[in-house]
Amino acid sequence: MYAFSRAVNSMHSEDVKKLMKQASGKNLISFAGGMPNNDLFPVNQIDEIYNSLPDDIKKLCFQYGPTSGYPPLVNSLRSLLEQKGLTVGNNKILITTGSLQAISIITQEFVNEGDIILTENPCFVGALSVFETFGAEIHSIPIDKDGIDIQALKRKIDSLDRTPKFLYVTPNYHNPAGIIYSPERKKELLEVLSGTGIILLEDDAYSDLYFSEEEKYLTKAMKSYGVEDVEIIYTGSFSKILGPGFRLGYMLSSEEIFEKAESVKQALDACTSSFMQILANEFLVQNKLEPYLTFLRSEYQERRDLLQKYLNTYMPKEITWNEPKGGFYIWLKLPPHIKSTDIFNKSVTKGVVFVTGRTFDPAGKKDDRLRLSYSNMPKAQIEKGVMILSEAIKKVLQDSEMLLSEKG
Amino acid sequence: MYAFSRAVNSMHSEDVKKLMKQASGKNLISFAGGMPNNDLFPVNQIDEIYNSLPDDIKKLCFQYGPTSGYPPLVNSLRSLLEQKGLTVGNNKILITTGSLQAISIITQEFVNEGDIILTENPCFVGALSVFETFGAEIHSIPIDKDGIDIQALKRKIDSLDRTPKFLYVTPNYHNPAGIIYSPERKKELLEVLSGTGIILLEDDAYSDLYFSEEEKYLTKAMKSYGVEDVEIIYTGSFSKILGPGFRLGYMLSSEEIFEKAESVKQALDACTSSFMQILANEFLVQNKLEPYLTFLRSEYQERRDLLQKYLNTYMPKEITWNEPKGGFYIWLKLPPHIKSTDIFNKSVTKGVVFVTGRTFDPAGKKDDRLRLSYSNMPKAQIEKGVMILSEAIKKVLQDSEMLLSEKG
Repeated sequence: MYAFSRAVNSMHSEDVKKLMKQASGKNLISFAGGMPNNDLFPVNQIDEIYNSLPDDIKKLCFQYGPTSGYPPLVNSLRSLLEQKGLTVGNNKILITTGSLQAISIITQEFVNEGDIILTENPCFVGALSVFETFGAEIHSIPIDKDGIDIQALKRKIDSLDRTPKFLYVTPNYHNPAGIIYSPERKKELLEVLSGTGIILLEDDAYSDLYFSEEEKYLTKAMKSYGVEDVEIIYTGSFSKILGPGFRLGYMLSSEEIFEKAESVKQALDACTSSFMQILANEFLVQNKLEPYLTFLRSEYQERRDLLQKYLNTYMPKEITWNEPKGGFYIWLKLPPHIKSTDIFNKSVTKGVVFVTGRTFDPAGKKDDRLRLSYSNMPKAQIEKGVMILSEAIKKVLQDSEMLLSEKG
Repeated sequence: MYAFSRAVNSMHSEDVKKLMKQASGKNLISFAGGMPNNDLFPVNQIDEIYNSLPDDIKKLCFQYGPTSGYPPLVNSLRSLLEQKGLTVGNNKILITTGSLQAISIITQEFVNEGDIILTENPCFVGALSVFETFGAEIHSIPIDKDGIDIQALKRKIDSLDRTPKFLYVTPNYHNPAGIIYSPERKKELLEVLSGTGIILLEDDAYSDLYFSEEEKYLTKAMKSYGVEDVEIIYTGSFSKILGPGFRLGYMLSSEEIFEKAESVKQALDACTSSFMQILANEFLVQNKLEPYLTFLRSEYQERRDLLQKYLNTYMPKEITWNEPKGGFYIWLKLPPHIKSTDIFNKSVTKGVVFVTGRTFDPAGKKDDRLRLSYSNMPKAQIEKGVMILSEAIKKVLQDSEMLLSEKG
């Protein structure tokens, strides 16, 4: 079972787990995978890179490296971030074993058992898994199509008897909601946090996967806004722009936070794989990233278009959804009287799976959503998957209407 | 600065740190590196493996994998351990980002702030770094040429007001002491731990690096002794038998311990690099490990012989040392009245560095040892390095004798 499945599994009831186990052997149509399709990886580019590595660099692949990261990669990231409008300046970059490790390090650095962490609702399940493992008390704030609900955030902060350690957000092509914060909402968020002492943890795993160049400006990181009295830790990842199997990410923070993070990192795994860092660095330095991103954006847009088309064709009118402008996910919305888990229980028996909304609610309750990923499944399966899913939804709608009319 | 250098640095005084900083730019002769020489890595073998990977497997290199590890690698390790006399049976294997991560996971699983961990004295500095970071109270027991001091261990356990969570040992080609436990000492250790509830954490990073086939039997793991009332967690590593840059290790434990460890692992970095696991698996499956180990054993034995020869030639009579039968290290012993740090302060100005004994003492005090690694430096530098080191030692001996005679 895949990397975040344990966290996913812990969110499901025993019945659902049984059904998933039964289903996992068969030919599933899966909208569940929050990862690229295997055929999309830059295998040829890495082949070229690997086979043209000079001997001395190839040997370095096998050797320990500095805890903070392979220095040429740190430099390449400096340039990369500069191009995104994020001047590193006096900040420091720490390379991590995936950006999940960065989230883990920051949690371990700042959070003692019982400390408060704020998150969006819904929230990336891998991060929830980290926060729970380290004993945080999680308070979540709803998001709308333009970002976090500012009034709800203010009310939440005012209501708490102690200062949260940080607010974790995924503002660009949100997992699972697919939205991107508006520039106004980003500014408002920084204003609310200003002077509170609440750190902003800005997870930017998906920002390169915008579909339209005209919209690229929306992805500008809050850490680049130059706001002085909000401490911002920015995390980035190679998972969606090179491959999750590289386990390569990074965090950008003040020097003080970096120093402690480097200590924690050393006690977690000493250093990140040199082999993976060297290949990733060459991918950047040999200018292979940009053409690859151009390909990916077009591919993911096509996949989004297919999913949108079939949702429009087959879904009952009660169901609504966003049109994501980047990233991997459509976040289907259900009417109030039916639950995602009930739909899952039906669709899995017909060979279609997805991730239920409940999985992304820190409290594990709110179940009026389905996350559909269009990034992973074979394109040829999208129509059939949507057909089957729509049938399952219709059955659940019928069942709930019968129940309502019986009660009435 | 390299992977464990932060831990090393934290053990040195400010003066020493300054000297190391000054020295690091120059052409150092370094006995400090606890890692293979860059020229010893199996680069050609990995080239072959990488370039003959079937397409579908190559794509898997880029993808997320199960938290517990790439299943074919888990199976290959099962066979590998079987060949070492370690039947996996009902135990479970968890692949980790280096065996240091396994040590980190186990510490996080079992140790709350203030809990007691027992270690050998001296102890691997990477492990000390982990134990300190997670707030353990470390109690150490001396070792002699055959292993941990059993009477001292018994006295220590009796003296404590609470049960230690685990005892961490490196019984085969110890880092830094170079010794290997005798079979009798291993048995006695298990008898002492029997029924105490103290877990044994058996770190076996170096056991493949024996020099003589006749002595291989000494490396038999305590976890394979079949002792029922000691809970043993066994960790292994690819760092010394493939490359530290792979960040690949594993732990073997009961299912119950594995389940919790898997949860912790997911909150640390979700899964280990698929790329690295797949290459390592092919290295095993294509039978490239054994010939490579044969080469390494011969190479490290030659290096040991060179170092022994020059120590014999140049070292003053007051200095003694072990003859290691495997692994990377000679553990030089000083007479009581001189300190390793004073020797370092002299040798570094002449361009020779090593790791001081104090670094490996959990209390950071005992400074009557030098760890000399013969695994990393160019062979051609060994004689000159020993000459310079011997001169430094003679100077420090002279200075101390003058002091003694002044006092007298």
